[in-house]
Amino acid sequence: MVCVRFRRDVAIVGVGMTRFGELWERSFDDLFVEAGLEALEDAGMGGDEIEAMYVGNMSAGRFIDQEHVASLIADRSGLTPIPCTRVEAACASGGLAVRQAILAVASGMYDIVLAGGVEKMTDVTTEEATATLATAADQEWEAFHGVTFPALYAMIARRHMYEYGTTREHLALPPVKNHRNATKNPKAQFQFEITVEQVIESPLVADPLRLLDCSPVSDGAAAVIVCPLEMAKEFTDTPIVVRATAQASDSIALHDREDITTLKATVEAAKTVYKQAGVEPEEVDVAEVHDCFSIAELVAVEDLGFVEKGEAGEAYHEGMFEIDSDYVAVNPSGGLKAKGHPVGASGVAQVVEIVEQLRGEAGKRQVDGAEIGLTHNVGGSGGTVVVHIFERAD
Amino acid sequence: MVCVRFRRDVAIVGVGMTRFGELWERSFDDLFVEAGLEALEDAGMGGDEIEAMYVGNMSAGRFIDQEHVASLIADRSGLTPIPCTRVEAACASGGLAVRQAILAVASGMYDIVLAGGVEKMTDVTTEEATATLATAADQEWEAFHGVTFPALYAMIARRHMYEYGTTREHLALPPVKNHRNATKNPKAQFQFEITVEQVIESPLVADPLRLLDCSPVSDGAAAVIVCPLEMAKEFTDTPIVVRATAQASDSIALHDREDITTLKATVEAAKTVYKQAGVEPEEVDVAEVHDCFSIAELVAVEDLGFVEKGEAGEAYHEGMFEIDSDYVAVNPSGGLKAKGHPVGASGVAQVVEIVEQLRGEAGKRQVDGAEIGLTHNVGGSGGTVVVHIFERAD
Repeated sequence: MVCVRFRRDVAIVGVGMTRFGELWERSFDDLFVEAGLEALEDAGMGGDEIEAMYVGNMSAGRFIDQEHVASLIADRSGLTPIPCTRVEAACASGGLAVRQAILAVASGMYDIVLAGGVEKMTDVTTEEATATLATAADQEWEAFHGVTFPALYAMIARRHMYEYGTTREHLALPPVKNHRNATKNPKAQFQFEITVEQVIESPLVADPLRLLDCSPVSDGAAAVIVCPLEMAKEFTDTPIVVRATAQASDSIALHDREDITTLKATVEAAKTVYKQAGVEPEEVDVAEVHDCFSIAELVAVEDLGFVEKGEAGEAYHEGMFEIDSDYVAVNPSGGLKAKGHPVGASGVAQVVEIVEQLRGEAGKRQVDGAEIGLTHNVGGSGGTVVVHIFERAD
Repeated sequence: MVCVRFRRDVAIVGVGMTRFGELWERSFDDLFVEAGLEALEDAGMGGDEIEAMYVGNMSAGRFIDQEHVASLIADRSGLTPIPCTRVEAACASGGLAVRQAILAVASGMYDIVLAGGVEKMTDVTTEEATATLATAADQEWEAFHGVTFPALYAMIARRHMYEYGTTREHLALPPVKNHRNATKNPKAQFQFEITVEQVIESPLVADPLRLLDCSPVSDGAAAVIVCPLEMAKEFTDTPIVVRATAQASDSIALHDREDITTLKATVEAAKTVYKQAGVEPEEVDVAEVHDCFSIAELVAVEDLGFVEKGEAGEAYHEGMFEIDSDYVAVNPSGGLKAKGHPVGASGVAQVVEIVEQLRGEAGKRQVDGAEIGLTHNVGGSGGTVVVHIFERAD
């Protein structure tokens, strides 16, 4: 991995997001504009300050028959003729949009950039949504043979159980925690608690994964505003500094990997990001990680170095990742599982949560004394991973 | 428009592209890998030098049921774990990929970056291809009402004829020139000449546009390798310098524009790029412009300042844009019309052509003494435009 050479420090000065859920009354562009306006308002900006935009979106082409969404968004936001660029890496599209914005400002190319993510998934049938989500996998080697996304992660789960003794109960623990956290998040899709028993007895999707192991189909958008740290105090009293950003790729198909109990792209991106930030995993206070399925969160906390390989199940059993843990709070927002997972928006919403946590503005789900935060966004079954580290500037 | 602050000069040191056409025997990833390998070979590289990749692709999600194509491409190229990012802006996706690579190197973020573009359009029916191309337009205000892409450009043509006296014969002149040029391009889809009469008598698509006014549905890929100018001589004797790059957006729908005989995003991007490069339109020796329809080329040469508004038809009649013209050669490659238009690849292929022209390696279609070249890539009906200016480094 190449260490990115930052020309200047970068901060997040505004964040916004819509409620996540089945938002029948809202269109794709309504959602983006709502999140963008909230971010502008948060930064005390009117809009003319924005020099460029990056938009993360996975598949508007299939979900709403609309490609060229960056043009649509620049148009509906009233921000033409500024450059607006869509980036796509399946469920990591949002993380990638934030990364492009950070790099554009860090390089000195622009001063003020808005990065947003948006997905409108509920205008199609469940079958169509499942088929579209499967376009994140290798079509020729995986999807054409009937493998859906839950099936890919089910294979990861089975192997993790076999290799490390992870149990069915262990798998249930991240969803139970995330639903509990989501009761404290007014923008979450599922603001109710679930029990381990409910997870284990919910309908089977792809053995061993059941309905309550899986993140939902959602609509939603999120946006952040990035600028040079030296300008940040013009817009906010609590700028959040980007300490590091990394992106890595891996084989798109599972069968090409030496070990499917780990996402190599997470390991690579984490290695780069910790080195660049000069931060050890144990120094992270709060993390939003990519829990598209219960097993994904267990694998993530291992690959990010929060626990040794194979020990995630027990660590969850001991409550190491709760909001009030002495260790690291994982997915205080409710995560993809309970906050909702509008795929192109999720990576941006993770950054929104971490910024609110580091500002101390996360309300009932506030992680006490959070100073260092991390986001971890995965595309497909690990073909793309984006990791950022943030810190409160004092 | 914001002028991009370049940290260091950037050069193109390798180019490659597949033949464009109906390539039934080749898959999406075959195409990208072929173009990428040709670019590496051209630069005398093995592949390990590449630090990051950008991929332009419009709609693999609909054409081949595959999103997350950047991961697929990093995988099939054997270049994991380097970051690989897909950008999309309909038919301007390729130009955007080149722009992102230029900015990434100019900023000092990376040294050696590969930008590619690819589209595999012939695996679906013509009806499906037409519907997918219409996703570049505004779904709610245009496509849902049955407007296809030829229909949008037909409205532009009708208005141009009404305002400026442009004739049906004028419309035929760019396709006739581009087919003639393509007979000299061994990678072009249509290597045969056509006459004005043949254009005017070809089947009606959307009045006044006929079949031979329209670019084809194509498969193909193209790739370029970008590095700092100071490193360029390690890889080539004839580095081509990027003098400027600009991107602009406009309303995605035609009805929101004051004047549909001009693409405002072209005018904005051109203004920026000429200023940044310190170049006047009349200094450009060779240009690859976005001729998705005959009218598009007439509008482009006006918007780029090669002729006054409304005078393109007569200028074509006088032969001002031929390969052997004393003025500026436009689309010596054959353009989108005759070289072919695999939408995500076209913006990259334009850069490949200009690099070969400025190197003096364009064979029978060489523009004598070409020193300054321009590319002009349009997304949709002008919602996104990317313009670059290149010059031979001596």
